[in-house]
Amino acid sequence: MPHIIAFGEAMVRLAPPHFQRLEQARTLDVEIGGAELNTAVGLARLGHRVEWVSRVPANPLGQIIVNRVMEAGVGTQHVEHANDGRCGLYFLEFGASPRASSILYDRRDSSIARVQPGTFDWPSIFRGAQWFHVTGITAALSSNAAEVVHEALSFARAAGLRTSIDLNYRSKLWSVEEAGRVMSSLLNLCDVLFASEADAEQLFGVRGVDFAEVAQRLQQQFGLTAVVGAKRETPLVWRNRFGAVGYHDGQFFESPWYDVEIVDRLGAGDALASGVIHGMLENDFEKAIRYGAAMGAIKHSIPGDLPWISAEEVQAVAEGAGLRIKR
Amino acid sequence: MPHIIAFGEAMVRLAPPHFQRLEQARTLDVEIGGAELNTAVGLARLGHRVEWVSRVPANPLGQIIVNRVMEAGVGTQHVEHANDGRCGLYFLEFGASPRASSILYDRRDSSIARVQPGTFDWPSIFRGAQWFHVTGITAALSSNAAEVVHEALSFARAAGLRTSIDLNYRSKLWSVEEAGRVMSSLLNLCDVLFASEADAEQLFGVRGVDFAEVAQRLQQQFGLTAVVGAKRETPLVWRNRFGAVGYHDGQFFESPWYDVEIVDRLGAGDALASGVIHGMLENDFEKAIRYGAAMGAIKHSIPGDLPWISAEEVQAVAEGAGLRIKR
Amino acid sequence: MPHIIAFGEAMVRLAPPHFQRLEQARTLDVEIGGAELNTAVGLARLGHRVEWVSRVPANPLGQIIVNRVMEAGVGTQHVEHANDGRCGLYFLEFGASPRASSILYDRRDSSIARVQPGTFDWPSIFRGAQWFHVTGITAALSSNAAEVVHEALSFARAAGLRTSIDLNYRSKLWSVEEAGRVMSSLLNLCDVLFASEADAEQLFGVRGVDFAEVAQRLQQQFGLTAVVGAKRETPLVWRNRFGAVGYHDGQFFESPWYDVEIVDRLGAGDALASGVIHGMLENDFEKAIRYGAAMGAIKHSIPGDLPWISAEEVQAVAEGAGLRIKR
Amino acid sequence: MPHIIAFGEAMVRLAPPHFQRLEQARTLDVEIGGAELNTAVGLARLGHRVEWVSRVPANPLGQIIVNRVMEAGVGTQHVEHANDGRCGLYFLEFGASPRASSILYDRRDSSIARVQPGTFDWPSIFRGAQWFHVTGITAALSSNAAEVVHEALSFARAAGLRTSIDLNYRSKLWSVEEAGRVMSSLLNLCDVLFASEADAEQLFGVRGVDFAEVAQRLQQQFGLTAVVGAKRETPLVWRNRFGAVGYHDGQFFESPWYDVEIVDRLGAGDALASGVIHGMLENDFEKAIRYGAAMGAIKHSIPGDLPWISAEEVQAVAEGAGLRIKR
Amino acid sequence: MPHIIAFGEAMVRLAPPHFQRLEQARTLDVEIGGAELNTAVGLARLGHRVEWVSRVPANPLGQIIVNRVMEAGVGTQHVEHANDGRCGLYFLEFGASPRASSILYDRRDSSIARVQPGTFDWPSIFRGAQWFHVTGITAALSSNAAEVVHEALSFARAAGLRTSIDLNYRSKLWSVEEAGRVMSSLLNLCDVLFASEADAEQLFGVRGVDFAEVAQRLQQQFGLTAVVGAKRETPLVWRNRFGAVGYHDGQFFESPWYDVEIVDRLGAGDALASGVIHGMLENDFEKAIRYGAAMGAIKHSIPGDLPWISAEEVQAVAEGAGLRIKR
Amino acid sequence: MPHIIAFGEAMVRLAPPHFQRLEQARTLDVEIGGAELNTAVGLARLGHRVEWVSRVPANPLGQIIVNRVMEAGVGTQHVEHANDGRCGLYFLEFGASPRASSILYDRRDSSIARVQPGTFDWPSIFRGAQWFHVTGITAALSSNAAEVVHEALSFARAAGLRTSIDLNYRSKLWSVEEAGRVMSSLLNLCDVLFASEADAEQLFGVRGVDFAEVAQRLQQQFGLTAVVGAKRETPLVWRNRFGAVGYHDGQFFESPWYDVEIVDRLGAGDALASGVIHGMLENDFEKAIRYGAAMGAIKHSIPGDLPWISAEEVQAVAEGAGLRIKR
Repeated sequence: MPHIIAFGEAMVRLAPPHFQRLEQARTLDVEIGGAELNTAVGLARLGHRVEWVSRVPANPLGQIIVNRVMEAGVGTQHVEHANDGRCGLYFLEFGASPRASSILYDRRDSSIARVQPGTFDWPSIFRGAQWFHVTGITAALSSNAAEVVHEALSFARAAGLRTSIDLNYRSKLWSVEEAGRVMSSLLNLCDVLFASEADAEQLFGVRGVDFAEVAQRLQQQFGLTAVVGAKRETPLVWRNRFGAVGYHDGQFFESPWYDVEIVDRLGAGDALASGVIHGMLENDFEKAIRYGAAMGAIKHSIPGDLPWISAEEVQAVAEGAGLRIKR
Repeated sequence: MPHIIAFGEAMVRLAPPHFQRLEQARTLDVEIGGAELNTAVGLARLGHRVEWVSRVPANPLGQIIVNRVMEAGVGTQHVEHANDGRCGLYFLEFGASPRASSILYDRRDSSIARVQPGTFDWPSIFRGAQWFHVTGITAALSSNAAEVVHEALSFARAAGLRTSIDLNYRSKLWSVEEAGRVMSSLLNLCDVLFASEADAEQLFGVRGVDFAEVAQRLQQQFGLTAVVGAKRETPLVWRNRFGAVGYHDGQFFESPWYDVEIVDRLGAGDALASGVIHGMLENDFEKAIRYGAAMGAIKHSIPGDLPWISAEEVQAVAEGAGLRIKR
Repeated sequence: MPHIIAFGEAMVRLAPPHFQRLEQARTLDVEIGGAELNTAVGLARLGHRVEWVSRVPANPLGQIIVNRVMEAGVGTQHVEHANDGRCGLYFLEFGASPRASSILYDRRDSSIARVQPGTFDWPSIFRGAQWFHVTGITAALSSNAAEVVHEALSFARAAGLRTSIDLNYRSKLWSVEEAGRVMSSLLNLCDVLFASEADAEQLFGVRGVDFAEVAQRLQQQFGLTAVVGAKRETPLVWRNRFGAVGYHDGQFFESPWYDVEIVDRLGAGDALASGVIHGMLENDFEKAIRYGAAMGAIKHSIPGDLPWISAEEVQAVAEGAGLRIKR
Repeated sequence: MPHIIAFGEAMVRLAPPHFQRLEQARTLDVEIGGAELNTAVGLARLGHRVEWVSRVPANPLGQIIVNRVMEAGVGTQHVEHANDGRCGLYFLEFGASPRASSILYDRRDSSIARVQPGTFDWPSIFRGAQWFHVTGITAALSSNAAEVVHEALSFARAAGLRTSIDLNYRSKLWSVEEAGRVMSSLLNLCDVLFASEADAEQLFGVRGVDFAEVAQRLQQQFGLTAVVGAKRETPLVWRNRFGAVGYHDGQFFESPWYDVEIVDRLGAGDALASGVIHGMLENDFEKAIRYGAAMGAIKHSIPGDLPWISAEEVQAVAEGAGLRIKR
Repeated sequence: MPHIIAFGEAMVRLAPPHFQRLEQARTLDVEIGGAELNTAVGLARLGHRVEWVSRVPANPLGQIIVNRVMEAGVGTQHVEHANDGRCGLYFLEFGASPRASSILYDRRDSSIARVQPGTFDWPSIFRGAQWFHVTGITAALSSNAAEVVHEALSFARAAGLRTSIDLNYRSKLWSVEEAGRVMSSLLNLCDVLFASEADAEQLFGVRGVDFAEVAQRLQQQFGLTAVVGAKRETPLVWRNRFGAVGYHDGQFFESPWYDVEIVDRLGAGDALASGVIHGMLENDFEKAIRYGAAMGAIKHSIPGDLPWISAEEVQAVAEGAGLRIKR
Repeated sequence: MPHIIAFGEAMVRLAPPHFQRLEQARTLDVEIGGAELNTAVGLARLGHRVEWVSRVPANPLGQIIVNRVMEAGVGTQHVEHANDGRCGLYFLEFGASPRASSILYDRRDSSIARVQPGTFDWPSIFRGAQWFHVTGITAALSSNAAEVVHEALSFARAAGLRTSIDLNYRSKLWSVEEAGRVMSSLLNLCDVLFASEADAEQLFGVRGVDFAEVAQRLQQQFGLTAVVGAKRETPLVWRNRFGAVGYHDGQFFESPWYDVEIVDRLGAGDALASGVIHGMLENDFEKAIRYGAAMGAIKHSIPGDLPWISAEEVQAVAEGAGLRIKR
């Protein structure tokens, strides 16, 4: 099976149960999440060997993250247990129409934001690997972190890996200007871009009549192989419609829409990325979009950020399996 | 900020989790609720100084109520801790279509039902206040309680406060005849009436082709400034449509409909009242209806009877904010 | 009140809370369920005297089952506490669109699968009883169990009881061929058959343009008095439409459709059976279908497999009660 | 197996988990308890056929009680489902040294307090029975209830049953004077008395140098066959020492002391009574004291008021079984 | 009743339930705590009017703190809702012999650490107040915070309040040298010191043969009225012995030892301080020590850091109430 | 770090929370455990590279086991996911004095009991490894399993690994005679034996005046390097005293006694084994006994069977760290 490397932060996520507001909470459910990690887990669940590269504090919170990454079948041998920095946290509050869900980040000064260029031995990490995945969030953590992302992408290219990046613009972390500048330089080192039309316009001023046109322009501007996005309709907080769109080799691809009954929508986009990378590793972009959509759609039904999904389930949903109880 | 007084009962509410029936329950979730209290909390959340006047037993159940009223930011300095009477309880069972939710009241012989006229020093309580709110439920608890409501409204008027009352007819507490008689005498002391068309017809025989006509007649009959109601469609137990309607100064006002994904619909009407009173304190009836509708709609998304809502959220929903996650 | 006997297995059901996947579970909710037991409980809730005949291991798991059967008001005096065999278990994982719910059975080698013909003193058990109910699942547990079902039906007929059977074909337990052969011989001893069109076709090769035609053929082939089925639409995992259809005395009956907000759909078909038997004990087949549909629809709103429903509730839903809170 | 009748109230018990104070509670655990019921359950667990006679409200709280009584294997066919009166509740708060546990009763106006003489058909209830058990708590509920206890004891005697009563003086329910007067008249109809030295002194002014002397005097004064008590040392809230003492036929009996690690000490005295009655039904008073002590001691290890204990366990503990894990 | 001011930080406390290690946690219980706040709550529970002065972030975590402070009956009108800084957190892991409990602090960069001198209008805050309480932890948060503590103590003295300080040396927050230097200057502004012998030696090099000697030296060195400490024996994690010692007016006072069954020992020292201040406000130092010991001992029995204790309970324990259930 | 291989079964463990009896359970906590796995986890926590060899069913229960083994840092690359056999379960009920805890096994027909000789490629598994650990439980599962244990020990010896075995006699799985016969043949292939005096006598008829004498005889009879045991006193269910004893090179070693406040004593002996193996890998038997005792003692404080302990903690406890909160 191919071998994949992902690099980024994971945070401990704390959320009140039973639709309570944070203010009302007397207990919090503990999950972990991080854009690249979520994608890494999705790929491991599809049968790939995946290593997640990161930096966590050498304390029980850092250990929670490492334990759960291992539990999900992703390798942690390149995770540095640091004596500086803290563990990023985020507090999630589930809403219900007409009130949206919301997230309170408490991620400043995390161990990975303090990462130094040269920390990771990329050539050794990339030995034998086929794909490297990262997102704009990691680059946004600090200028150091952005530098390390650049370093990683350069080494990945040099080692012959295919590379993907998810824009994932977070306005709380950096300005549109800084994000545009940094991400531009990173995109030049990438093969596949995951992006929304809104982010593409905000960061690069790229716009078009539809996703296909925007994707085509991004592809040309940054020399990309493929551009992929999610499509989503949000009539209610707990009922959405979801699917995937992609542009590759001059062609536009689109999955069917899925009606999703949402249990937890965090990480749906990251699960989509794992389905897409899975398909692209088989050099089948049509399958990439189909699997990405199915994987992203199924993720909505699973608590936490991680996609606890099997290959059989993705296959079944992609083929339109029904909703009767499986006995 | 204006200063508001509410008077009424609060009960301890006990409800099985996870949609269990009461018969199945091995644990019960503990909340508190009471029509006037719910409205008081909503007003406190919008930034007002609010005192809740009541009578609770001097035992841990009474203390639960007082603690939580304080937690919600409402003053309790005029709450009497009584050595007679018990703490009213209600048991709530959540249904799901085609079975409705249901409530079992166990509120007989509560401390507040035993209240005596003269218990509260109303002139001192009303000093510096602008608004007094009460509901028909308090009047229904006992003839003593009804007398104290009359006393309170009279003193409120005398002290120059604006007064509002919510009909809230409860057939388990008194007959239509008695309710009609008592409420008529109270309405003569009120500026604003919250009422449903059904209750108006049952209690006063007032009917009309629509809410506007009913409201106009009520307004004339009782010399009211404004009449306000909720509008609701109930296609399912966990999905409703909700909004507010009002009549003021010869004009009919109506909010948009909100699709609500219900987490807990108890207290939605009381939250509506707090939004309306908030708007009326600014002498803006159009805003009153808009805020009342938004506040009532948001309440459906929050566990318990109390409206843990912020002014910013009401504003956002009233302006049509979307349902994407707020990061 | 009539007196009813049901015979079959009950299993301990273990399900993760909060929509977790089994893999994620750190706690499991404990319920019990079994097709005949579920129907027995439904009938007890409607006021009948019901005995459930079974064989459970003489250990705490067997005791959980017996305790809860008693809690639900069903008699257990004919339940054998066995020193051989284990307690059947099943693990239930709730899905959400587009992922279906699923069940993992761990029921091999259960005490009841080891039952021996002659174990139960049927003539004494049936003394004073009016109705005997069983399902194809019991017959599928082992050839011994099938023999005991045959024994029971023969004695029931001999004792003048009316008899009903639910096909309930389970492909994990036996082949279509074996099921067809065994069930054919059992159906010849039955008055009422609960079956789906799909099972009828799989097991007996009986098909038709609609349920009525299939039912008519089944009725003729096996000399049945009535054939009953459920109708269901499954647009989503947590929202279905449900109702009952039946064929009796040359006439086709059909209930209205119910929109069901699903809390737990396990046991809905068994609840339907209890409503139908209830109606047939009053010799009113129209009521049987109406009550069966209402009972099955309400069951979707209740956690666990057992129908914790009252006669008043069935009556109310059958008459189209609304969805407002009952106070 | 002998057949036993018990008569009394059961309440729904609500207790915060995790040593929370009531004031802090956000959930409450739901159990049921009642002195006579607890003893009835203990006897059913030891293999006896037991009926519990009572009066509960015809609502879900009353149904919780009936369901759980059935779950514990005790018959409820003589329980009246009443349309008047409420369900008694009690709120339990667990302490820890140096703060004692405490109970807040909310039992006024219960359905059973409203019982009328003549409600129960005692001759029919006692047909075939050997023993009748009641406690002073039932007599304390109301003068009506006391009258019905007298009625029941008279009929029991007439029907040839042996009768037992537990003094269980509750100062919140009645005065020492009234209790002394009523209990005296009841004791004259009893064979076995369960009592503490303190209650004996308070109610009847009977005192002595030790339990034996007090018991002897009570025996003589009321013509009793046996007098039984618990012995308890309370160095801490969660560690006690416990045992049984008894006086019968001029002889004093005493069990060994048990070190008890307390999970829930409610109902320990009632469990003791069931062990004692069990032994006395075998006319073996030494065994009665031994079993009573073991059963009472084990009860401390079980959550809730009911003694979920098996005959084998009582036997094992009475014989001094060790504390290693049973595999 | 006297009126008291406390100044300091409160943190959100997150702890795994059921003795889980943090690594194992899937849920965390949410409490709040802070040395001065805990003492403030204890005083409010004893009937005093108390205001807690602090600075919290204007987000849901800051709101959790403010809500719960209000719930406990302490005033928050002088709490600043800040737009800078985060909410301090601490993670608590309960141990069991031979493994101690442990705390992971995540409190860097809190809003209160960023407090500026001049933020609080101390003269207005102190108007009408009798006592001001603070601890060394607040001074340790940042040099700014230390400066504000100095400012507060100076204004308190000027306004005629009595002042108390708890050394509470935290080696994770500052060095022995810095703590010694800063605390010395603060002690000169204080009347009452709460300190352990160990801290006194570490920070000021003060030692003696026993607490009395150490206290006498501290009293002389800093011109104190009284010096108070806790005494504690720790044979096990969940069973301690606890009491209070004090030195006042040349005299040594000592409470009895209490055997404490520990539910949660956090905040015991702070509860002791509230009992002591309560006694000193009555100018009764013997009562101060007696109440301090009882209050501290009882605190061990209560989940969370806050002392949910009533004056009656303190009184009862101080008088040696027994451990039997209070009915 | 040395590299260790363990071979055996892991079961899913289901236990009611809050000291409930199994009969009372409405939820069950889910843990995993297995003698060799527990030891493997202990060694991984101490920093070793460990692989656990087993056979689990290819279903969600098997996946729970694999996920959690990975979570604990133990390798699973040699675990076979089987299509035959089920997942072993055990139900654990916590007692309290005077009632012992108890276990109900439901492990028949597990995938690993169906293992075939030749299934595992032992030479490849043992490549680069230093130690192999197994227990008598694995040999007891089936004759096949015993054969595979023999196969594994033979290959381990051949590959130059040191080997250890824990007798762990389980009377539910096999007779004393069979166990004695099979274990004798396995012991001849082992270097280190973990055994209790009782098991040694039951299985091999070896007895002596104390552990040292028994150990010496076992050592001679089977050519062992070392014999190790636990020492335990059980005055109560939740308070024990615990330590380790060992015999090596003609010398008897004994750790201090630890007072343990028990949270969960399952797996304490297995944790002891991991401490011992850790010491022996450093060829320091005195440290082996010291670490074994500390690790076993600490395990009692941790929920579940797995020893979530760090090397620092073992070190600290072995050095007599105190019980004050670590801040």
